[in-house]
Amino acid sequence: MKGKSTLSRRDLLKTGAVGGLGLLLGAGGIKGLGMLGESKQTASAAGDSDAVIPFHGAHQAGIVTPMQDFVCMGAFNLTITDIAEVRKLLKAWTVASARLANGESVGEESDNALVPPADTGEVMGLQAMRTTLTFGVGPSFFDSRFGLADKRPSKLVDIPAFKGDELVDEWSRGDLIVQVCANDPQVAFHALRNLARIARGKAVLRWLQQGFQRTGAADASGSTPRNLLGFKDGTVNTNVEDKQAVKDIVWAEAGDGASWMDGGSYMIMRRIRMRIEVWDRTSLGEQEATFGRHRQSGAPLGAAKEHDLADYAKQGKNGKPMIGADSHMAVASMGGKVKIHRRGYSYSNGIDIKTGQLDAGLLFICYNRDPSSQYIPMQAKMSEVDRLNEYIEHVGSGIYAMLPGVNKGGYIGDTLL
Amino acid sequence: MKGKSTLSRRDLLKTGAVGGLGLLLGAGGIKGLGMLGESKQTASAAGDSDAVIPFHGAHQAGIVTPMQDFVCMGAFNLTITDIAEVRKLLKAWTVASARLANGESVGEESDNALVPPADTGEVMGLQAMRTTLTFGVGPSFFDSRFGLADKRPSKLVDIPAFKGDELVDEWSRGDLIVQVCANDPQVAFHALRNLARIARGKAVLRWLQQGFQRTGAADASGSTPRNLLGFKDGTVNTNVEDKQAVKDIVWAEAGDGASWMDGGSYMIMRRIRMRIEVWDRTSLGEQEATFGRHRQSGAPLGAAKEHDLADYAKQGKNGKPMIGADSHMAVASMGGKVKIHRRGYSYSNGIDIKTGQLDAGLLFICYNRDPSSQYIPMQAKMSEVDRLNEYIEHVGSGIYAMLPGVNKGGYIGDTLL
Repeated sequence: MKGKSTLSRRDLLKTGAVGGLGLLLGAGGIKGLGMLGESKQTASAAGDSDAVIPFHGAHQAGIVTPMQDFVCMGAFNLTITDIAEVRKLLKAWTVASARLANGESVGEESDNALVPPADTGEVMGLQAMRTTLTFGVGPSFFDSRFGLADKRPSKLVDIPAFKGDELVDEWSRGDLIVQVCANDPQVAFHALRNLARIARGKAVLRWLQQGFQRTGAADASGSTPRNLLGFKDGTVNTNVEDKQAVKDIVWAEAGDGASWMDGGSYMIMRRIRMRIEVWDRTSLGEQEATFGRHRQSGAPLGAAKEHDLADYAKQGKNGKPMIGADSHMAVASMGGKVKIHRRGYSYSNGIDIKTGQLDAGLLFICYNRDPSSQYIPMQAKMSEVDRLNEYIEHVGSGIYAMLPGVNKGGYIGDTLL
Repeated sequence: MKGKSTLSRRDLLKTGAVGGLGLLLGAGGIKGLGMLGESKQTASAAGDSDAVIPFHGAHQAGIVTPMQDFVCMGAFNLTITDIAEVRKLLKAWTVASARLANGESVGEESDNALVPPADTGEVMGLQAMRTTLTFGVGPSFFDSRFGLADKRPSKLVDIPAFKGDELVDEWSRGDLIVQVCANDPQVAFHALRNLARIARGKAVLRWLQQGFQRTGAADASGSTPRNLLGFKDGTVNTNVEDKQAVKDIVWAEAGDGASWMDGGSYMIMRRIRMRIEVWDRTSLGEQEATFGRHRQSGAPLGAAKEHDLADYAKQGKNGKPMIGADSHMAVASMGGKVKIHRRGYSYSNGIDIKTGQLDAGLLFICYNRDPSSQYIPMQAKMSEVDRLNEYIEHVGSGIYAMLPGVNKGGYIGDTLL
């Protein structure tokens, strides 16, 4: 156990008799584990990769939580129309999620051979790995089925069509969304799979997308990860330690129009395929001009270090600005006036059988308080002028109201339902 | 750097000027790095997750190498017919692979803005992460295109159709195969992507499959990983420390009929989809009877510990053998007479859009010296009687002659070409 103070699936295996895990748990046990988890948050970043992130709180974890190495995100279509049944589903997901975040099996195990196991079992013995589970609802949740049309937040707008969009429905939308992040892909997959299983008869998976960054072990210094175009991605992002910035950029408030969203946030997911093969044949100069940054250091063109400020006036030898107005950095900066909180992951999905090219790119995930004044104008501008557009293609899209945090005793979505 | 003695992409970034990495490398540098890597092999398993595994040797790495956490496997179709061009490709792959295994960029970087970077860059700053690259050729490599028909090993047979096979061509076959394993998914993907890039104009990706196990951080004790059916997978496998067993099971020898395969091995890859949703609704008793093992401990039914010997005669309360003759363990054991060396990974590929069910399962990968007397009779029997067949479906298949190791100064496939 490497001196850890939390109980994990592994400890339970050691201390519990076969089939007797349930004896150690129950509501009190869960609560206790959560408190132990909270006490660990001062551990070092490297030693913390398998730690517990508390599920309960004023905000959902997984939004301003420092990013884990893997994501498994699933959208669900509800197959029921009775709101009481939806409430039951979300209550069952709440119980399961609190346990999963603690590194426990999804339900109390029994050795009854006549019934299916409570948990699918593939992470027995594994640590919690900083698992977070973050829940939201899409615009379709407020259609005529559940009688919630008048509760749809005005901020939960439909995303307009942008220039160049090549969206396919199989990577878009959904009534419910679950973002699972963890420092282990099997742990993240397991969580989503078990939520899907619990939803049987009530909701079916609409899509499931998995993403990765480099593991902590590969880069113990925690430098900015690189995207699959080889450039650092995330140099400029919300400082999650800056409470004012997080308040301004991320969290919805009661006064924003939907009081039940107080403490929630709006997430936009875009599956952005990269034209890998074309990019890989592009010169270093064109690549750097496209991003507006030096590839190796990540510094703005004309600067020396990654976090140096961009000097948009600085001219190159040809008398033109070193950082072009159409560079990705210049466009995305929006003059410093429009900000979002990004939480993206790379994806790779084999090859496109039709073209033989790699089907890989970015699961762009961002959180913002008001998409109409944050994400949407930013993407509208980028879709028109971003030099990067030559090398990417948006193939999936969704917007979701990510719910406020769940208090102990409450359930996911209780402020809405 | 955590006190490591190897140079990594990260160190090179620290010590080399921008664009000047090449100055530090060259053939001598690579050789030196390899030797440093070799000296590290006594480090602890946990501390070793980012180490270097030497590329050169009598056998290819990645076969009896203790398994890494991730695989990225790609099959290529050759688009050329001139054997001299094939040789050139394999020589270029050799140079790149030796560098990748050492945690270096795939080629010497330059700051020439007018040409594409030598390396795609997404792992700049990352450690080697125990990367292995293992190369082989499929039966189609010996068709009429290259004049090598008479060199096809008699052991490289075509895999017969097995009962229940649902093979699709897009997950099968290929002229060339590359298995990249590493303890980081981005590092593994990067290696295969760069090999595909180097092959431009000579070979195209036919398929690419990625797999995972739990990360070392999630299970520092190194217990047997579990498959996505929740059972331990790999309890009985070749002991790679047992030289006689490895010789008997894995390595082809000159006397086997194709002298150029001396020190190589034959790999079979099967993409095995699991009927996850059906399994998850199955009782614990049926699950355990299917595998012949206890789910939690991994012990044979009727025994207490994972590595206890199976007692096929022991009867349960109903007077029948506790381990059924049709259980996966009983069938796969082949009476202890037929053995293969397995190296499988789980895969998850979103959902099957036609059914809404999870597209997930096992990338079954095995190595053997003589498929006709090892893998094929084993799979023939399993396809007929294995109780697990109700829950799985073979959708991809390939057999490959995995080449002997590459000596310093040699190149991949030099004994054949």
